[in-house]
Amino acid sequence: MTGKDMEIIGIPRAVRDACRKHLLQSRTIGFVPTMGALHDGHLSLLRKARRENDIAVASIFGNPMQFGPSEDFEKYPRDIENDIKKLRNEEIDILFLPELSLLYSSGFSTYINVDIISEKLDGGFRPGHFRGVATVVAKLFNIVDPTRAYFGQKDFQQTIIIKRMVKDLDFDLDIVVCPTVREDDGLAMSSRNLYLDKEQRRAARVLYRCLNEASDAIKSGIIKLEEIKDLMIKIISGEALVNRINYAAVYDPMTLDEVDVIQGEVLIAVAVRLGDTCLIDNMLINS
Amino acid sequence: MTGKDMEIIGIPRAVRDACRKHLLQSRTIGFVPTMGALHDGHLSLLRKARRENDIAVASIFGNPMQFGPSEDFEKYPRDIENDIKKLRNEEIDILFLPELSLLYSSGFSTYINVDIISEKLDGGFRPGHFRGVATVVAKLFNIVDPTRAYFGQKDFQQTIIIKRMVKDLDFDLDIVVCPTVREDDGLAMSSRNLYLDKEQRRAARVLYRCLNEASDAIKSGIIKLEEIKDLMIKIISGEALVNRINYAAVYDPMTLDEVDVIQGEVLIAVAVRLGDTCLIDNMLINS
Repeated sequence: MTGKDMEIIGIPRAVRDACRKHLLQSRTIGFVPTMGALHDGHLSLLRKARRENDIAVASIFGNPMQFGPSEDFEKYPRDIENDIKKLRNEEIDILFLPELSLLYSSGFSTYINVDIISEKLDGGFRPGHFRGVATVVAKLFNIVDPTRAYFGQKDFQQTIIIKRMVKDLDFDLDIVVCPTVREDDGLAMSSRNLYLDKEQRRAARVLYRCLNEASDAIKSGIIKLEEIKDLMIKIISGEALVNRINYAAVYDPMTLDEVDVIQGEVLIAVAVRLGDTCLIDNMLINS
Repeated sequence: MTGKDMEIIGIPRAVRDACRKHLLQSRTIGFVPTMGALHDGHLSLLRKARRENDIAVASIFGNPMQFGPSEDFEKYPRDIENDIKKLRNEEIDILFLPELSLLYSSGFSTYINVDIISEKLDGGFRPGHFRGVATVVAKLFNIVDPTRAYFGQKDFQQTIIIKRMVKDLDFDLDIVVCPTVREDDGLAMSSRNLYLDKEQRRAARVLYRCLNEASDAIKSGIIKLEEIKDLMIKIISGEALVNRINYAAVYDPMTLDEVDVIQGEVLIAVAVRLGDTCLIDNMLINS
């Protein structure tokens, strides 16, 4: 069950050398960057990376640059021992586990920004978040030089920002977006679900219910955004433990602009706060 | 004299494939990115890249992102036929000659900024210039994936911004900075020298004279910045055709901050306008 030996490497240059060695032998590298606290959503990415490539590489790095000063960087779930067991179990070849100071050296001052789409949706509530994501992902891509990198659709905005960056900066790799993995009751898997107490955990089901009801309404022929938004907000507002709705609407999946008239492929997306915890979810549908 | 056959490639993916083929055979790649109108300064970079690597790659791309709206992008010197002759003569293996639309596709929105040092010196006079430089250089690095890339010391600020970006974003390559190549009378080679009329060309000698006199003064024991600045400004002001001094001072070569007390390695740098043409020059000295 433990699979083959996994190398655990903390030094960026050593990871690069290990990956380059594989590259020189024309092996493909599948890469799954994570912040740890691995759940079944991560495991689905790891399995796909393992299946589709000669070499599977994962990273665990809690990236402070993508957390705002009032956010949860300090208390973000960490469970490195269990994470390592899970990675071994998925037969990952290399785990890149860098210390902070090795990725952000003294005088660090280079930032990558993907304009416009980084300001929408979660970007509006987390200034600088996607700049931090784009910057660290570019660093990891430069270190690992993967053939394919795997991300979950739950963080939809992140996936289109990274795809845009890869295209704009000519990174030589494919971005693979994998379906959101859900708990039995539909809640999207997220490390942040660990923050929820029992009552909040029950209340969190409202996100998936909201997406499904919006999807049903669109499929039944409603094409006016305002009607769908009203429906979504009514459903979420029915859950007393939700203390804020960040957004709940239907968007163009390329631009993340709200669509006035719903047609073609659209993104239904929602973000709410339950206590101090922000939860997001989305659904891509063909209307 | 024409050397071996040089491949001229316009498609980024084709350049990448050609370079990756060499990489897979463990060949080193030396890369010289240029905006064309090649002069002896460029040739010194090309020769060094040729000498130090198995494969020598040059690019010619006038990057609009690094020119401001009131700057000289449209009239920037272009002489592609002669450039190609010179590159063949230096036995360059691959010339990457992309069209604008292949590097900046519709919806382009990713920008790399190296904070703080990009705002100093020329950055103060050319807002967004170094963001454009950093972004296009990162793109070219991702396409060519060179072992070493060569830049001239004349654009000193550019070299430290690129070195910072390479370090911060974990690019796997070495930046090689080559000495400024000068005309017989000391004027630093620059494509923009072509803009100067005969009188301006003669007046342009004041930059090198100013750097030399500042250097002599520092070596003679003057350590107060204000004294050196006064001297530099006095020398430049003696040249009637100079219609603006952008800056003329002594700087910390890491931070580009002015140094109050001159000691250790310092950068003497100057930028002036002659008519519509901005000329820059610098000298690194050990005081």
